Amino acid sequence: MRILGIDPGYAIVGYGVLDYQGSRFSTVEYGAVTTPAGLPMEQRLGMIYTGLDEIISRTAPEAMAVEQLFFTTNQKTAIAVAQARGVILLCAQQQGVPVFEYTPLQVKQAVVGYGKAVKTQVMEMTRRLLALEKVPKPDDTADALAIAICHAHTGSSRLTSKLYAKGGFR
Amino acid sequence: MRILGIDPGYAIVGYGVLDYQGSRFSTVEYGAVTTPAGLPMEQRLGMIYTGLDEIISRTAPEAMAVEQLFFTTNQKTAIAVAQARGVILLCAQQQGVPVFEYTPLQVKQAVVGYGKAVKTQVMEMTRRLLALEKVPKPDDTADALAIAICHAHTGSSRLTSKLYAKGGFR
Repeated sequence: MRILGIDPGYAIVGYGVLDYQGSRFSTVEYGAVTTPAGLPMEQRLGMIYTGLDEIISRTAPEAMAVEQLFFTTNQKTAIAVAQARGVILLCAQQQGVPVFEYTPLQVKQAVVGYGKAVKTQVMEMTRRLLALEKVPKPDDTADALAIAICHAHTGSSRLTSKLYAKGGFR
Repeated sequence: MRILGIDPGYAIVGYGVLDYQGSRFSTVEYGAVTTPAGLPMEQRLGMIYTGLDEIISRTAPEAMAVEQLFFTTNQKTAIAVAQARGVILLCAQQQGVPVFEYTPLQVKQAVVGYGKAVKTQVMEMTRRLLALEKVPKPDDTADALAIAICHAHTGSSRLTSKLYAKGGFR
């Protein structure tokens, strides 16, 4: 199963593409789509769309795993991140890639094994599971890989529950 | 000048297209793009994209005016509306339509003449300015027409300020 993990943002969209077969991972590619500060938001959204569209076309993932959003103390940031997330979900929908959503707690539990893990623990376990020399930079990319791992570890049950879900909110 | 006003949402996107020439309005078309509850959010975003893309292609607006978002008490609703708004801004960007943003206060001031106007006053003045028999339904459509009127009344100065703006947040 090929999984695209996404850490949504409007300045940096972290992404990571993994293959998961027989409980082993192989890393396809990872990186970030970045947009320059100072551009009008619609142009930044256009860059995110183009960048993510290319990544999906190039890597043909069978699932997209995206971190769930929670409100922060900064209203403008939260609205801008949610706007970018809408564009990201649209990319997946237009290319027929099913979308799955995970909370930070679910990611920690799936990657490290318990929900109170700190960020550095998640990153180090991500590095080990993928047999990478270093934790990928920026952090958004490492986070995206962790989200992809989370989907690999929990995806099959989620897929079933999604099929039977009625009117779930996402 | 042809203006597309948008009241963003994920269940209902109100829209209204106006021509504004020599301080007179003529109404081109108005309505709403609606998405059914119970569909996964990415499918609803796909429907919003398709609907709005068609409206822009059909009516060829020279500007899109969109209401600015503020946080509500309902986090999930605010995130979902912002996601839809991201898709709406993307549609405009992809078709080369400049985007302008207005607060509810600006809309009230531009349409009724003072910022403490109540919703029914805004709707009634929108109806009169556009010489419509009735206030359009749903409310999202009437709101979208009011936002378009707001841009007509204030747009030229905003356009100038936008050209000179550096790194403005939207």
